[in-house]
Amino acid sequence: MAKGLLVSDPLTSAGFVSLVSAGPGDPELLTLKAANRLSRAEVVLYDDLASGPVLDHAHPHAELIPVGKRAGRPSARQDHVNALLVEHALAGRRVVRLKSGDSGIFGRLEEELAALIRAGIPFEIVPGVTSASAAAAAAGIPLTRRLTARRVQFITGADVTGHLPEDLDWAAIADPAVTTVVFMGQRSFPELARGLRAHGLPGDTPALFAQAVGHPQQHLIRSTVEDLARIMETAPVTHPGLILYGPLAFDL
Amino acid sequence: MAKGLLVSDPLTSAGFVSLVSAGPGDPELLTLKAANRLSRAEVVLYDDLASGPVLDHAHPHAELIPVGKRAGRPSARQDHVNALLVEHALAGRRVVRLKSGDSGIFGRLEEELAALIRAGIPFEIVPGVTSASAAAAAAGIPLTRRLTARRVQFITGADVTGHLPEDLDWAAIADPAVTTVVFMGQRSFPELARGLRAHGLPGDTPALFAQAVGHPQQHLIRSTVEDLARIMETAPVTHPGLILYGPLAFDL
Repeated sequence: MAKGLLVSDPLTSAGFVSLVSAGPGDPELLTLKAANRLSRAEVVLYDDLASGPVLDHAHPHAELIPVGKRAGRPSARQDHVNALLVEHALAGRRVVRLKSGDSGIFGRLEEELAALIRAGIPFEIVPGVTSASAAAAAAGIPLTRRLTARRVQFITGADVTGHLPEDLDWAAIADPAVTTVVFMGQRSFPELARGLRAHGLPGDTPALFAQAVGHPQQHLIRSTVEDLARIMETAPVTHPGLILYGPLAFDL
Repeated sequence: MAKGLLVSDPLTSAGFVSLVSAGPGDPELLTLKAANRLSRAEVVLYDDLASGPVLDHAHPHAELIPVGKRAGRPSARQDHVNALLVEHALAGRRVVRLKSGDSGIFGRLEEELAALIRAGIPFEIVPGVTSASAAAAAAGIPLTRRLTARRVQFITGADVTGHLPEDLDWAAIADPAVTTVVFMGQRSFPELARGLRAHGLPGDTPALFAQAVGHPQQHLIRSTVEDLARIMETAPVTHPGLILYGPLAFDL
């Protein structure tokens, strides 16, 4: 058992942090456990993307603290969130740290876990529906296919500098028999697509752009890697979106 | 928009199929949407793994039909499930097809979607918490790490014959800088581990075995690829389990 993990009952104990995944944005895709933890929290620290109707599950007397991107530079922001988490838990409060999607997938979970463990604060992780699953579901397709997509992989299209990561394994991500989901990849997709094609991925490989899944502004584009790269070159980035490519079941 | 997808209101319409993900087994990891769909269904077709307390959300008058593995050979079973889905929907009933984990990830979703589309039956897909996210959360670790695990991939350890798939991309799955989650991989893990080591993955790469996550019988083993292969060689397969390997954050 990892240090700090579930050493006390999260329902009654004070000085406890629940790292709660809010799901992809559709408030109905919150889990029962996440709703329960929100209803019992005294403090809720939430991201921009994990706000809105999801916060209606919080207790009316809970203190709601936004810790989204507007708070500053990435490193300063993360240190600040870590410090707030520790501070409220050490004050003996039941804290929910609400993170969008599934917190374990490109959610900067590790930094917050490390801070809690260093401070000796008990915690639990409440998993959630990843945006990748929600995007595929919204488009009416599976992420894996028994005969043609027996591997599915998630990558990020932006490193800490906001650019395409330099250490991409091109052979692994240009495999046309794999479903690949690109998180935070809108801006860099034209560059990614050029690399994929240079490494053998056909330009007419199916691709899906899924923006604001489950929100009233949901927007899906069924396309190909080549055409989607062209669209992304000029499309404004309004809501965060995911890009999926591979043998997507558009032909069902 | 894919044929059949969300052409009518799932809350009121008859002759509609909701393909509902039940999550990893912990009834608290059901989504609010899944609970809602269960409460309104007239017929629920459920897998072995998606049974238990989750079914308590079904309406008391709903017809509950198990369609699990005990029903026969894989192909016959899938054809049978497809036929039942179509039959109940064409009779004008609100049908929930309850599948374990996230239905889009190794859930044989494609076959059922194809049957519904062929029969002209409207449907929706309700995504859920994948067992991969739940296993990592139970172990207190993230699936991705900002500096050391910037890709996460899901593979299956068993093809339709129950053996290790023959078309594995060894270079992609033996990458020590990637978190790999193996579904249905308990029996074949010793063979998989031999192949991984032959393709350069160090034997002391961290590995996690997670069985019955969220159930009272939950069992986690934190180990290494080498040692876990040895354990799996002799361990009985009681509950289904997942295996994760890669730069897992056991050192947090």
